[in-house]
Amino acid sequence: MRQVVEADLEDLAIGAAVLGTGGGGNPYIGKLLAQQAIRQHGPVTLVDADEVPDDALVVPSAMMGAPTVMVEKLPRGDEIIRAFKTLEDYLGRRITHTVSIEAGGLNSTTPFSVAAQMKIPLVDADGMGRAFPEIQMVTPTMFGISATPMALADEKGNTALITTVDNRWTERLARSITVDMGATAMIALFVLSGQQLKESMVPGTIGLAQELGRLIRETRMAHGDPVNAILQRLDGYRVFEGKVADVKRRTEAGFAKGEARIDGVQGDTGASLVIRFQNEHLVAIRDGEIVASVPDLIIVLGAETGEPITTEELRYGFRVTVIATPCDGKWRTPAGLALVGPRYFGYDIDYVPVEERFGAAVRA
Amino acid sequence: MRQVVEADLEDLAIGAAVLGTGGGGNPYIGKLLAQQAIRQHGPVTLVDADEVPDDALVVPSAMMGAPTVMVEKLPRGDEIIRAFKTLEDYLGRRITHTVSIEAGGLNSTTPFSVAAQMKIPLVDADGMGRAFPEIQMVTPTMFGISATPMALADEKGNTALITTVDNRWTERLARSITVDMGATAMIALFVLSGQQLKESMVPGTIGLAQELGRLIRETRMAHGDPVNAILQRLDGYRVFEGKVADVKRRTEAGFAKGEARIDGVQGDTGASLVIRFQNEHLVAIRDGEIVASVPDLIIVLGAETGEPITTEELRYGFRVTVIATPCDGKWRTPAGLALVGPRYFGYDIDYVPVEERFGAAVRA
Repeated sequence: MRQVVEADLEDLAIGAAVLGTGGGGNPYIGKLLAQQAIRQHGPVTLVDADEVPDDALVVPSAMMGAPTVMVEKLPRGDEIIRAFKTLEDYLGRRITHTVSIEAGGLNSTTPFSVAAQMKIPLVDADGMGRAFPEIQMVTPTMFGISATPMALADEKGNTALITTVDNRWTERLARSITVDMGATAMIALFVLSGQQLKESMVPGTIGLAQELGRLIRETRMAHGDPVNAILQRLDGYRVFEGKVADVKRRTEAGFAKGEARIDGVQGDTGASLVIRFQNEHLVAIRDGEIVASVPDLIIVLGAETGEPITTEELRYGFRVTVIATPCDGKWRTPAGLALVGPRYFGYDIDYVPVEERFGAAVRA
Repeated sequence: MRQVVEADLEDLAIGAAVLGTGGGGNPYIGKLLAQQAIRQHGPVTLVDADEVPDDALVVPSAMMGAPTVMVEKLPRGDEIIRAFKTLEDYLGRRITHTVSIEAGGLNSTTPFSVAAQMKIPLVDADGMGRAFPEIQMVTPTMFGISATPMALADEKGNTALITTVDNRWTERLARSITVDMGATAMIALFVLSGQQLKESMVPGTIGLAQELGRLIRETRMAHGDPVNAILQRLDGYRVFEGKVADVKRRTEAGFAKGEARIDGVQGDTGASLVIRFQNEHLVAIRDGEIVASVPDLIIVLGAETGEPITTEELRYGFRVTVIATPCDGKWRTPAGLALVGPRYFGYDIDYVPVEERFGAAVRA
């Protein structure tokens, strides 16, 4: 257990955006909102998963929708609290803890706003160890945990509470509601007992995010190579280096979809790389061949700064390094791959773990 | 107060479909579902609006969506009960009465299923005195009554509960949810006190529907003209007689939209009539000129049988009589016309009451 103060959010938001693999929301906005909440309501108590009592009532909190829209449509701050109150009323019980549903600039920091405003502890864990675009794509789904009852709230004052027959239906209904609410909504879902949290979620994601952010900052201050530092910490591989040549982006059915083309500068790692995304990076295609895919993490970092770049920030001319890192082991099971493997996203290829594709050869 | 038994539903469903003005759901399906519920749970107690205690908790029940879809996708029967239970849980109070939200083959009979299954009385009233396609288009909206909290349920087992900032937002969110639920959903909304019911709703619609159905049946048995009988009872006007020449229909954004063209047979009432509809008939255009419009009722009856024909049943070759009847006076106020006047539906004309257009000249 430890207290998280305003200053901690700087590193945390940056590191979370690394794990967000292009999605998970803008770290700058996420940081500002969480800092504002802490300034107003005091520091947040962060507890480890194994400190949570088995009978705790844990409710993850997050932003849903297209991050491209969130950049221009700031949350008002009380949406997520209305979603929490709606869920508490429905459950007839007090929520004792919140937790992050995915890693990301916004979705790792949103739960801090909730924890600060509701004065409940935040659990250091998440439901992915990274970010994914759809609701059912969390490790609790594999443990048979229902996404509903789920509450949604928008900045205008509308709320919705849904209960569905399965988590795919939750995604479907919640996505339409989110689109109507203006392409983004704040959500509370996947109600968990403390015991369910411990067996089904990925522990330590918040701590890891803060560590990654600190690593980037300190390595830069020491004039080191922050990309290398990230690669070491995450057991990752350098996939490509180059300059962003083209970004195609559209907001479709509530998602930010598109692709980025990066041209090699030195040609050391190939002539060209295409990254396709749906909120998050799905596949990296180097010179026509898929070299990394979900559920492994495909991460775009500023070549010099080591800072993560989300898909909505990606611009022509940016010099970037693309890295790939192994996902949490739960995603590599048949159940995990059925939920988030390349075939689910329409790529007719078998998943090959990033370690097998790259081996020791191009290891940083 | 009186008991409604299975046999009463025959006339009631037919008469309700007259007031449904092309929409409001299929009377045959509505009748079957209500009869099944009465057979299983016993007769329904129908009370007049002025018999309802001021502190009663009244919740209207209805089907939402495209009636074209409802013909092929039968409700399971317990959807609306799940919607009611969801709302009761939210309110933390028992619902004491239900009522119809609009007149229509299905939406006048659905509340009978609810009343029978939940063993609560049904109030003889509705929120329109006819049918309209969108949620906010009810007289309670003019009295500042909120459509939410609103519950929706589908036949698969999904439910949603929404609270919105206004009734237009209710329409928007509920419409998307309904589309996802398969273009139809059963709904409970516009929670009213007994006092609010009495001041804001249209009294006597169920009794009127039953009377109209009986009139059609008995006039036919006596070899009279059922169309004339309806015209007399509703102070209506004969707008057109002819044969259906063409029906264009599409299911769009959760509505059944389109138009029907009817060619004059004798030419007495004109050469051709076009009726445009969005679930319900919106305007009647005779030889290029709008001769009747919302909020007045435009009703298509079988020329011989006098039976109402809903838009989804309308077929090439049907011989029909189109009549127009005056709407409830609440709709003729500026607030009423803002909600459901021709301009709301995109017709750039002033509303002219049907009595002014037709006068005594073509009165039956």
